[in-house]
Amino acid sequence: MCEANAYIVTDGREELVMESVDVVEPEDDHSRYRLTSIFGDQKIIRGRITLMNLVDHKILFEKNK
Amino acid sequence: MCEANAYIVTDGREELVMESVDVVEPEDDHSRYRLTSIFGDQKIIRGRITLMNLVDHKILFEKNK
Repeated sequence: MCEANAYIVTDGREELVMESVDVVEPEDDHSRYRLTSIFGDQKIIRGRITLMNLVDHKILFEKNK
Repeated sequence: MCEANAYIVTDGREELVMESVDVVEPEDDHSRYRLTSIFGDQKIIRGRITLMNLVDHKILFEKNK
């Protein structure tokens, strides 16, 4: 499976917010993102994508200022 | 490997712009994205992410209006 883990980065520190993310959808003019895991659970991240590294299974977000 | 293919969607039609994408980085305040494939080649997409489906290995973009 090729899901990724989503992190919020604050002051250089990565905080895991969801494992095994399958779907990432921007909402509300890209001010937030809906994450859906391979298990079907969902979370909203109020922030922006700063980096995705698919081979490393990582999606990084920063919180909206 | 867990890379994805990137497409630009125009009028519902998906046009493949890069295969085997590893890294996706926003640039210029998210008005464009730099894609890097697992082979190291790079492309700039002037648009926004509309959907990522990692299990399906798909990243969809729409062009900036």
